[in-house]
Amino acid sequence: MLYDLNITQFTKTLQNFSRCLDKAAAHADARKFPSEVLLAARLAPDQFALLRQIQIFCDTAKNGAAYLTGKEAPAFKDEEKTIAELKARIDKTIAFLQTLSAKDFEAAASRRVSQPRWQGKSLSGHEFALHHMLPNFFFHVTTAYSILRHNGVDLGKRDYLGEMPYKEA
Amino acid sequence: MLYDLNITQFTKTLQNFSRCLDKAAAHADARKFPSEVLLAARLAPDQFALLRQIQIFCDTAKNGAAYLTGKEAPAFKDEEKTIAELKARIDKTIAFLQTLSAKDFEAAASRRVSQPRWQGKSLSGHEFALHHMLPNFFFHVTTAYSILRHNGVDLGKRDYLGEMPYKEA
Repeated sequence: MLYDLNITQFTKTLQNFSRCLDKAAAHADARKFPSEVLLAARLAPDQFALLRQIQIFCDTAKNGAAYLTGKEAPAFKDEEKTIAELKARIDKTIAFLQTLSAKDFEAAASRRVSQPRWQGKSLSGHEFALHHMLPNFFFHVTTAYSILRHNGVDLGKRDYLGEMPYKEA
Repeated sequence: MLYDLNITQFTKTLQNFSRCLDKAAAHADARKFPSEVLLAARLAPDQFALLRQIQIFCDTAKNGAAYLTGKEAPAFKDEEKTIAELKARIDKTIAFLQTLSAKDFEAAASRRVSQPRWQGKSLSGHEFALHHMLPNFFFHVTTAYSILRHNGVDLGKRDYLGEMPYKEA
């Protein structure tokens, strides 16, 4: 289940958001303003702008997978300035997630997870996924989506959710 | 795991959001405007307002649990007009979630889930939780939070995430 969440579902959501960025770029082109304006947009003055929201949700997925599997995640420099560069970061994040297998997650639930800022405290992998990784990931993706919606990009929830693997009957 | 997500984690997130509504009410009082103004706020003209976002995330949690366990969920009339009434809806949602046990979720992953609007198509419980319930729940909670943030309510991500069950080293 942790594999399905962290790899399968997060990969899908990252791909969905990458397509939202295509719509954002098209919107900026059609209105003849630089798409970097959108990347600097935010919903409150003391909230991270869109560019940083995207960096954070990539890192939440990537570092979460590293914490849960004990594998080393690639380090990304926070240097993106354009939609194309942010899409490349999403692609690199997905590429790392895809190096991991269900087997890598076998001990994930009981693994001890800690982060430098937790000052020596820790969570089990199960607790980390539930209380931290999942709500944080969807928080930053949804906030990024909301910033685009607020700025008039033609998005709907289907763009965020993506296709459902329905079966007939 | 589906129990932990749908009951443990969603209950925590609902409780966290209920406290965000307390802060929203206090903010409106301090600024001397009716808190219903916040409930009518939205981030885009064709997006649901805060009041509806709250109704939807309650229903996503409640109906999701019903789909996954085969239990019947209580029906809520969409009649709330005040923060107090919405907090009561959140409480009723949590009360229903708390009637369910881990045992009720034993067959959840393989249960067939369908909704009237899916026109006869279905997902497995596992697929439903991953592709539908989880991303939808966090989407509407985060959007509700973003509407409050955008309107100046003094919230931070810790209000959304709540306490972490850290252990010392």
